[in-house]
Amino acid sequence: MVYFDAASTAPLHPVARQALLAALDEGWADPSRLYREGRRARMLLDAARETAAEAVGCRADEVVFTSSGTRAVHTGIAGALAGRRRAGRHLVVSAVEHSSVLHAAEAHEAADGGDVTRIAVDRSGRVAADDYRSALRGDTALACLQSANHEVGTVQPVAEVAEVCRAAGVPLLVDAAQSLGWEPVGGDWSLVAASAHKWGGPAGVGLLAVRKGVRFAAPAPADEREHGRAPGFENLPAIVAAAASLRAVREEAVAERARLTALVDRIRARVPELVPDVEVVGDPVRRLPHLVTFSCLYVDGEALLTELDRAGFAVSSGSSCTSSTLTPSHVLRAMGALSEGNVRVSLPRGASEADVDRFLDVLPGVVRRVREQLGAPAAAEPEVTDEESGLVIDTLGKRCPIPVIELAKVIADVPVGGLVTVVSDDEAARLDIPAWCEMRDQEYVGERDAVHWEHLPPEAAGVAYTVRRRT
Amino acid sequence: MVYFDAASTAPLHPVARQALLAALDEGWADPSRLYREGRRARMLLDAARETAAEAVGCRADEVVFTSSGTRAVHTGIAGALAGRRRAGRHLVVSAVEHSSVLHAAEAHEAADGGDVTRIAVDRSGRVAADDYRSALRGDTALACLQSANHEVGTVQPVAEVAEVCRAAGVPLLVDAAQSLGWEPVGGDWSLVAASAHKWGGPAGVGLLAVRKGVRFAAPAPADEREHGRAPGFENLPAIVAAAASLRAVREEAVAERARLTALVDRIRARVPELVPDVEVVGDPVRRLPHLVTFSCLYVDGEALLTELDRAGFAVSSGSSCTSSTLTPSHVLRAMGALSEGNVRVSLPRGASEADVDRFLDVLPGVVRRVREQLGAPAAAEPEVTDEESGLVIDTLGKRCPIPVIELAKVIADVPVGGLVTVVSDDEAARLDIPAWCEMRDQEYVGERDAVHWEHLPPEAAGVAYTVRRRT
Repeated sequence: MVYFDAASTAPLHPVARQALLAALDEGWADPSRLYREGRRARMLLDAARETAAEAVGCRADEVVFTSSGTRAVHTGIAGALAGRRRAGRHLVVSAVEHSSVLHAAEAHEAADGGDVTRIAVDRSGRVAADDYRSALRGDTALACLQSANHEVGTVQPVAEVAEVCRAAGVPLLVDAAQSLGWEPVGGDWSLVAASAHKWGGPAGVGLLAVRKGVRFAAPAPADEREHGRAPGFENLPAIVAAAASLRAVREEAVAERARLTALVDRIRARVPELVPDVEVVGDPVRRLPHLVTFSCLYVDGEALLTELDRAGFAVSSGSSCTSSTLTPSHVLRAMGALSEGNVRVSLPRGASEADVDRFLDVLPGVVRRVREQLGAPAAAEPEVTDEESGLVIDTLGKRCPIPVIELAKVIADVPVGGLVTVVSDDEAARLDIPAWCEMRDQEYVGERDAVHWEHLPPEAAGVAYTVRRRT
Repeated sequence: MVYFDAASTAPLHPVARQALLAALDEGWADPSRLYREGRRARMLLDAARETAAEAVGCRADEVVFTSSGTRAVHTGIAGALAGRRRAGRHLVVSAVEHSSVLHAAEAHEAADGGDVTRIAVDRSGRVAADDYRSALRGDTALACLQSANHEVGTVQPVAEVAEVCRAAGVPLLVDAAQSLGWEPVGGDWSLVAASAHKWGGPAGVGLLAVRKGVRFAAPAPADEREHGRAPGFENLPAIVAAAASLRAVREEAVAERARLTALVDRIRARVPELVPDVEVVGDPVRRLPHLVTFSCLYVDGEALLTELDRAGFAVSSGSSCTSSTLTPSHVLRAMGALSEGNVRVSLPRGASEADVDRFLDVLPGVVRRVREQLGAPAAAEPEVTDEESGLVIDTLGKRCPIPVIELAKVIADVPVGGLVTVVSDDEAARLDIPAWCEMRDQEYVGERDAVHWEHLPPEAAGVAYTVRRRT
């Protein structure tokens, strides 16, 4: 099995494993105890904190270890919001943050007086510093921006946004989960959150750095552990392993960055040559070294992943059809990118050129097979026409990518300037039909409710998406 | 070094270590992914949940893994309170709960409309079910009771209290951190919280069981992991190790319980014979198998621990002088037990009879040496007398156990029926002077503010504790 899903979790780095085993022997005791084992545990914890702080580029007493990156984000956001409660209750986040940030923002919105502004991104998934400038207000307590996007790899202008925030007197929290293994966060940030298992450390360790001078009130209940910012017995062996592996991956970062960047460039260049109807998404240059995402028209993401798994490749997808919530990736949606047939390839350190080439060999056949399976839906609904909507295709009850496949099938039958309407009850169609129009240079007219159309069955509760044939 | 502090954290069980290593290889991937590594991780997680549920005595889908026992307690309490918000905002806890429970109660008290009743304990540290019955009200949302006390080992009447709660329609959360490695929680509980590193599992894993039918609303922000009750990437290798070691310690429990119970009985019997002026606290029979606590008059807890550490023994203390917060143990305070010179011995599984005997050999000399060191304070303040207070001893600026040592030194000079007053600014004196009176059969008269006494320096801000000589 070739593992190309490092952005979900990186395989344990050999240094992490070694450090973990050593710390299981040396660092199992309670570091708050006064006897020898306790003091030794405390020394290991202090040393791990020094190492992590050096990698982050801050003081050791600014770093605490949490139980996960998610917990670091939740605590960082809640603590900064509470610390600046007097300034106001306004929070600014980008629309493409990791779900942990967006969940924290939703929780804030649901709480007393919480107000959230979500910053839009361009088609590459990147925010503009000016949009942050416009969003900051007198009552803004905190702004959040990821260092780089976890789904499409686009690197964000963190240093610029930090400057904007600094000028407005607003702290900036940077979710550096995807990038901290590669480099420190640049710019004048106030808080940084990260996750050890993303850089080859063990699961169960997050990192939260809060610069001195940033007002911070840790969410209750708290205890005396980790400066009162991460309650519960310290997961010391894992913390030691996390710090050791962070140092190790940083030492390897320059060489590995160059190597993986070149491999990803190869994937970015070859996939559109090898597979028809593919959109490679995300910024081609300002990106993470190891990550690339592309979407394949007329393909079901889950089927694609299953076929790739059979062929021996582990990859991930932001398609609606693979996540447990059955909603399309909020990142792809915010970018206006196609969500169907989405594949994220994220190379782990040490990924071989041979494996990448084999992936490129296998991919075209896999996509073709899945397209063939989906290309002929068993029972196509009869097409009807309607004055206002032109040709109407009923795809109710059909999951993505069927609505787009049906649309693509009939577009040639529509006269140039004429309309075609797809009725669908799959939420992904809202994203994928406009994205298909953009890729195919067709005009997306808009959507409207399809509940009361007389030529559709009364239980129909879909949405009608209308397209005008341009070419 | 002989480790007698298993109640702080148990050494890693060999089965846990073995399972951890295996799961680092087999269970490192994201269990929510569809490829082979992800599916394998999911299977390991499901199996661990089954194993843990069997040990708890509940259904697998009632169990989630958290990042620590503290987190399990915090989430359990917050979730149950939120789930029963309509019932009311009243929370009942015992006065001797673990700090994680008390911190959660304080956070609830500080929140909108939160109201907390703390149930007192008897001198053995045990609550009465009737006191819970009296405390439950129409607006009680939740009651909490530990299965056994972590400082003195007293086992609580959980089944009885559960029955009382059930009759009142109030869910009962049981903090089973100290006992789950020995046995399931008895009675008709609603929620159970526990911590893997207390039973020989790794750090970084807690367990929260919520019975079906218990109203529960997990605190926000949440995500899709662990039924929405424990956000963040699952710490899978540690979870697998936690479940495996729970099963392993349960298999050994009957034999080990008998062995450790006998060793603790030996300590309980021998310590008062070997060391003068000692109070062994906690219930002698209804207790944890492996834990015993005693307090030595006229001894500084920190000094005692340091000497025992030098002699090769790692033990813990609830004395004011050893905790980082410098306040006396809330457990000993609630029991009305002496806090000075407090030592908690908690035997790990496999603790040897020879080590226990060596501890009993070493202890008397250690206590004697510490008492000698403290017995002659360098500069005793002049004693004065006062009409209302009798002999007055100024111990301002002196830490425990000096105030009690000074009291003990002069009591013989006080006529029977006469008064002696100790002025102290150490919070521990509030607990230790009444406890000393009880042990020495003297009458504790009471306390009052000592700020404005003319014969004391103006900066004095202590409290005056007055004692009447009875014998």
